[in-house]
Amino acid sequence: MKLNCDLGESYGAWEMGQDEAVMPLIDMANVACGFHAADPMVIRRTVALAAEHEVEIGAHPSYHDLAGFGRRSIAHTPEEVHALMLYQLGALDGMCRAEGTHISYVKPHGALNNDMMRDDTLLRAVAEAVGTYRHNLPLMIPVTCRYHEQQALIESLGVPVLLEAFADRAYTDEGLLVPRKHKGAVHSDPEIIVSQALSFAEQGGVTSINGRWLELPAHSLCVHGDNDSALAAVQAIRDALKSPSA
Amino acid sequence: MKLNCDLGESYGAWEMGQDEAVMPLIDMANVACGFHAADPMVIRRTVALAAEHEVEIGAHPSYHDLAGFGRRSIAHTPEEVHALMLYQLGALDGMCRAEGTHISYVKPHGALNNDMMRDDTLLRAVAEAVGTYRHNLPLMIPVTCRYHEQQALIESLGVPVLLEAFADRAYTDEGLLVPRKHKGAVHSDPEIIVSQALSFAEQGGVTSINGRWLELPAHSLCVHGDNDSALAAVQAIRDALKSPSA
Amino acid sequence: MKLNCDLGESYGAWEMGQDEAVMPLIDMANVACGFHAADPMVIRRTVALAAEHEVEIGAHPSYHDLAGFGRRSIAHTPEEVHALMLYQLGALDGMCRAEGTHISYVKPHGALNNDMMRDDTLLRAVAEAVGTYRHNLPLMIPVTCRYHEQQALIESLGVPVLLEAFADRAYTDEGLLVPRKHKGAVHSDPEIIVSQALSFAEQGGVTSINGRWLELPAHSLCVHGDNDSALAAVQAIRDALKSPSA
Amino acid sequence: MKLNCDLGESYGAWEMGQDEAVMPLIDMANVACGFHAADPMVIRRTVALAAEHEVEIGAHPSYHDLAGFGRRSIAHTPEEVHALMLYQLGALDGMCRAEGTHISYVKPHGALNNDMMRDDTLLRAVAEAVGTYRHNLPLMIPVTCRYHEQQALIESLGVPVLLEAFADRAYTDEGLLVPRKHKGAVHSDPEIIVSQALSFAEQGGVTSINGRWLELPAHSLCVHGDNDSALAAVQAIRDALKSPSA
Repeated sequence: MKLNCDLGESYGAWEMGQDEAVMPLIDMANVACGFHAADPMVIRRTVALAAEHEVEIGAHPSYHDLAGFGRRSIAHTPEEVHALMLYQLGALDGMCRAEGTHISYVKPHGALNNDMMRDDTLLRAVAEAVGTYRHNLPLMIPVTCRYHEQQALIESLGVPVLLEAFADRAYTDEGLLVPRKHKGAVHSDPEIIVSQALSFAEQGGVTSINGRWLELPAHSLCVHGDNDSALAAVQAIRDALKSPSA
Repeated sequence: MKLNCDLGESYGAWEMGQDEAVMPLIDMANVACGFHAADPMVIRRTVALAAEHEVEIGAHPSYHDLAGFGRRSIAHTPEEVHALMLYQLGALDGMCRAEGTHISYVKPHGALNNDMMRDDTLLRAVAEAVGTYRHNLPLMIPVTCRYHEQQALIESLGVPVLLEAFADRAYTDEGLLVPRKHKGAVHSDPEIIVSQALSFAEQGGVTSINGRWLELPAHSLCVHGDNDSALAAVQAIRDALKSPSA
Repeated sequence: MKLNCDLGESYGAWEMGQDEAVMPLIDMANVACGFHAADPMVIRRTVALAAEHEVEIGAHPSYHDLAGFGRRSIAHTPEEVHALMLYQLGALDGMCRAEGTHISYVKPHGALNNDMMRDDTLLRAVAEAVGTYRHNLPLMIPVTCRYHEQQALIESLGVPVLLEAFADRAYTDEGLLVPRKHKGAVHSDPEIIVSQALSFAEQGGVTSINGRWLELPAHSLCVHGDNDSALAAVQAIRDALKSPSA
Repeated sequence: MKLNCDLGESYGAWEMGQDEAVMPLIDMANVACGFHAADPMVIRRTVALAAEHEVEIGAHPSYHDLAGFGRRSIAHTPEEVHALMLYQLGALDGMCRAEGTHISYVKPHGALNNDMMRDDTLLRAVAEAVGTYRHNLPLMIPVTCRYHEQQALIESLGVPVLLEAFADRAYTDEGLLVPRKHKGAVHSDPEIIVSQALSFAEQGGVTSINGRWLELPAHSLCVHGDNDSALAAVQAIRDALKSPSA
């Protein structure tokens, strides 16, 4: 069970995240590609930091919306999504060459991720772009109760799938994240977070907010490096996953 | 003697250039990479058109300045120039994958090109980025009377050099282009344009505006596809270069 | 019956529209504010041209999306729409000061216009921004069969309403424009265009594509200056409206 | 002696500065206008905060360069500078209307400020834009030993001048700020900062880094709100200026 984290989210003079602190604790770095965050200098530094810690580099492409941090849906045609994916994958991969490395997987960001999970036409456009970019490059998507059909769609295009889960978010009965505005949506208790991480790692699923067991196989857990308590949670998850029982 | 042309200079709803008309007439397409022109959809179309006509695709990276079309100097550090080069080379090369092709050379655009020709620190940053991006990827620069030392600097970094010349512009005694504001700077007479093209192709140089012979070896001539008379000039140059005497 | 036209849609080196040709023929110029088109220099020129021809200047604000020309919906909160409206109204009005003039009305552009016509929350945010910007500044909206309630909503905020209609577009039975992809959506026959203009001007409505009479009162007709036939249509409308029978 | 501070320098999801902490301590807020920082929502919040604390709002316009935070020179014509000034003044002033207020002065940011202080053609373009925007709107410039001639140039255009000085920066014999890379360029000792503030306020000048007395009259001191020690310095300056001796 690998840990992935969104990184490289600074822009010019604006700093975001504690990339240097979290990088040693994770296995996979989802690096912003310039459309929602990360100018070329930020990407360069982030890629160098990942290479130093031998962390896999994933592309974290987005709608083009710096002011909205890629969190606002933009009504794109599938052709436009295909093109903005290729552009960003290439740009990040170009920066990787400065460190003699390359992107290992792709995880769409924010509203693009949300939109593709609701709209198979967009999901197909995203997956086709990933497959066009490089043979056997995996696409990472959040695991939900619909994962079978989404995985089938993506694999039918020759693109491998990585499923990610969240240790610090409650799940609905449909295997979706409980929206942040709802009570109990976000776990802050480190014990609960570690327990949920172990549930995904050892049981292959999680109990929903209503107490229903959900079979949700995950290759990777998404963790956060925004603040000190998030960092402590990552360390705790990492320790727990490494312990003999895990 | 190959013909190169700046292409892919549309952006969103704004059209520029007659790419479809000029593509069949040239050998090398310098494709904008999104920083001075060309959103991802424009790049996609341009790359497809180049592939269809078996025209080599060159990256045409620029300072990031859409409103200024990359024609305004921006005071960058060499590290910033290195990073913005890698980003744009990668982005364009990513789009090339949609057509199963890749970039074959790099020619900086506008103010970035002018600035690197005046400042060896920038030229080194540009060349290092090209070499970092891909071993043996050539950098195209305008040929001037200083070409020996500039070529040596670039080649010392392991980067091959392509020299370009202009058939429709008058040269100073230093082998620089006569600034556009001066009388006689731009040739409009097709006979003169063809004659200057043949001079570069057959004699390996050109006579300056003051009548001095300049030894200026060129691998490629830069032509334009902006309007009908430019297109006619490209056709005339192409015909002349193909004729038995050429 | 005044004629309004979208203008100032160039950006940097990219030209769009025949602003100099159409400006003498219209009464109201909807000037882009920099978010979908028009850098500050383009705005400056457009405002000067409007002032020269004593044409009223309207703000034509948009979602922030140059590559999409403001034609793609972006999921904004009402607060964001309010803020982006104020910013653009102010920016254009600031440029107007260079000509000793000011904006006289506001007409949202593209996807922002479409979205506010479908969503009263957005319409309210738009209207509140207009009212906040300047007391008694009118908001121009397309007239549809729902115009009574939309006009009431806007006027309840103290904002005057201008209704616009189209002479060159067919209308559905609901008073909406027939989507461009449908046959007969766009009139190209100058006689039909002039006849529809006169219908709005003299009869206060139009016959729908299905032959139903629609009572649609309009203060202004939207015309286009993109090409020669569009310009000819504007001239024909103008002549017809000025003739004794009009 | 008023205190001014650069504020509103966040952008979208990126926070910069401690605006809420510093606003109660200052008299004049230099608010970013969207070209180097501050999307419309950030401007809206900043203007509301300034209005709440009855702090004067100044426009802080910049070259258009988010990734460079307006700190990189961009080679603009005077006409372009004039236009980008008007655009930004209007945009910020438009946002001010949401709080029933307006801009009271203009202070250019970063590289634009540096460039205009070195180039009278740019200074003239900046001053003309300020005068065009509103009669009697003051332009704030850093006071140097050249202040007489710069003030004369600006006032000859009918634009009032505000001179600003720095309490936490050493001055050269020419009345310029000692570049940051030099030892002793930035004062961190609160006593020295307060002493230099009082020197400007009570003696009308400052002693240069070489011990030379400089007659430098200032209307305002520029202070910073980036971090806790900067905030403590602002409080100490404020207390000292209010004490009976001041």
